[in-house]
Amino acid sequence: MANSPSGDSMAERIVRVISAFDSENPSMPVATLARRAGLPLSTAHRLAAELASLKVLQKSGTGELRLGMRLWELASRSSSALDLRQVAMPFMEDIQAVIRQHTQLSVLQDDEVLFIERLSSRGSVANFARVAGRLPLHISSSGMVMMAHAPRHVQEEFLARHRDDPAPFPAADELRRQWAGIRREGCATLPGVVDPETTGIAVPIFGPQGPAVAALGVVVPRGSENTSATVPALMTAARGISRGLGTHSAEAGPRHGSGAAAGD
Amino acid sequence: MANSPSGDSMAERIVRVISAFDSENPSMPVATLARRAGLPLSTAHRLAAELASLKVLQKSGTGELRLGMRLWELASRSSSALDLRQVAMPFMEDIQAVIRQHTQLSVLQDDEVLFIERLSSRGSVANFARVAGRLPLHISSSGMVMMAHAPRHVQEEFLARHRDDPAPFPAADELRRQWAGIRREGCATLPGVVDPETTGIAVPIFGPQGPAVAALGVVVPRGSENTSATVPALMTAARGISRGLGTHSAEAGPRHGSGAAAGD
Repeated sequence: MANSPSGDSMAERIVRVISAFDSENPSMPVATLARRAGLPLSTAHRLAAELASLKVLQKSGTGELRLGMRLWELASRSSSALDLRQVAMPFMEDIQAVIRQHTQLSVLQDDEVLFIERLSSRGSVANFARVAGRLPLHISSSGMVMMAHAPRHVQEEFLARHRDDPAPFPAADELRRQWAGIRREGCATLPGVVDPETTGIAVPIFGPQGPAVAALGVVVPRGSENTSATVPALMTAARGISRGLGTHSAEAGPRHGSGAAAGD
Repeated sequence: MANSPSGDSMAERIVRVISAFDSENPSMPVATLARRAGLPLSTAHRLAAELASLKVLQKSGTGELRLGMRLWELASRSSSALDLRQVAMPFMEDIQAVIRQHTQLSVLQDDEVLFIERLSSRGSVANFARVAGRLPLHISSSGMVMMAHAPRHVQEEFLARHRDDPAPFPAADELRRQWAGIRREGCATLPGVVDPETTGIAVPIFGPQGPAVAALGVVVPRGSENTSATVPALMTAARGISRGLGTHSAEAGPRHGSGAAAGD
C-alpha cells in the first residue's frame, strides 16, 4: 500500500526517518536526514514537513530537525517498557540506596540488551549503558543472565544465528558452559568485559509465563564487587519485581547459592 | 502525498493508529483500533499488519495489538525529554532522598503539563500524575510555575486561547494575579486542587535562553507542607538542573524569599 517507485512503503519510510535519529545524532539538517534515511532529498523534505506538522519531528531555531516531544509521549504512555519500569522503579531505588552504584533494568531485543531504565549516583563508576541504549548480549551481565534463563530452544536458536560471528564472539560451547554456570549461581558476574574498570552483576526477573522477561543489574568498581552482599540484595529486589508483574513467588527465581535454578 | 480517498495522508493515519493507545487502553483488538483511529476496518487491518512487521506494533498471544518496544526505543534514544531527564535525574534523587515524597519533572506542551519523569517512594501520598501523562496547566503547581515565568506575550496568548473556557477555568485576571504571586515567591503551591489530600509545590527550571523550560515539583500530604524547608531544597536542585542545561547560574532563577523574580 502507498508504495514508492523503489518499492518501500510510506510506513517503512517514516520508520527510516525516525530511526535516523539516535543518541549520537539527535538533530540534523534535512540533507543529512535524507542521507541517513536513504531517501531522495525532495522526498525527505516533504516527509519532514509533514511529520513536523504532526509533531513527530520538530525544527530547532537553526533549522535542524529532531524528534518531537509528542512522539516520545505517544510511544511512552502505553509502552510495555514503562509498565515494567513502573513496577521495577521502587525496587531499583532500594537497590541503589543499598549498593550506591548504577542500577539498571533491561530486556532482550533482537539478540541484544535494551536498557529500559538506569539510576546513577553521582560518584558511581562509569557505565556505558544508557536509557534506550543497547549492548551485545554476550558482553553484558544482564544479557547473559537473561539468555541463561531462557528456554533451551531459544538459546540454541541464538547460537545458530551467531554461528558465523567472528571472534571475539565466543564459541557456542563456551557460551553453553557460561550459561550453565550462571543458572547454577542464579546470577551473572562479568568483570571488565564492557570496561576494564567495572564489573556487571545481574539477576533474572521472571514473568508470569515462566522465562526471564528482564534483568536487574548493577555496575560496580572492579575489585570491590562484594558479590556476597550484592547478589542477595539484587535477588530480593528481582523477586519483588516478579511478584509485581504477577509471577507466583514460588516461581520467581532461584535462591542465592541454592543451585536450585532450572536446567542442568 | 499518498493520500487516501478521505484526504488524510498515510503519515497522519499512522499517527492516529499510534495515538489510539494510551495508559487506559494499552492493548486492543484490531476492530477497536479501527474505531479509535477512525479508520475503515480493512485499512486498520492492513496498516496494523504493516506496522507490526516494522515492530512499531506488536501482537500479544491473544491477538490484541499494542505498541512495540521498538517504537519506545526509537522515540526515547534521541528525545529531548530524555536529555532533560538525564540532567535532572541525580537532582531529583537528591530531592526524593530529602523530601521523601513524589518528585516530578515536567514541561509545557499544548497548554498542558506533560510529566517527563516521576520518582515515588512506597508510602508517599497518592499522585495523579504519571510518566508521559498530562494535567491541565491551571490545576498543576508545575504548570502554574512554568506559565508564571513565561514571557508576558506567552501568558496573554494562553489567556486568549482559553478566553471562552467555562468555569471552573479561572478568570484571566485571577490567573494574572496568581502568576504575579508565584513570580514573587519563586514557587507555586497549590493545596488540594488535583486531590483534596495533597499539595503540589513546584519551582521553575530555567533554560539557556531565559524562560522556564521545565518545572521541578513535589506532591506532599496536605497540612504538612513544610514549605520553608521544601522550597529551598527544590530551588537548590532546580538551579543545579539549570546549570546542567548550560544556563549561567546568575540567571538560573530567583532566590528563596528574595522577591527578585522577573516581572512585577
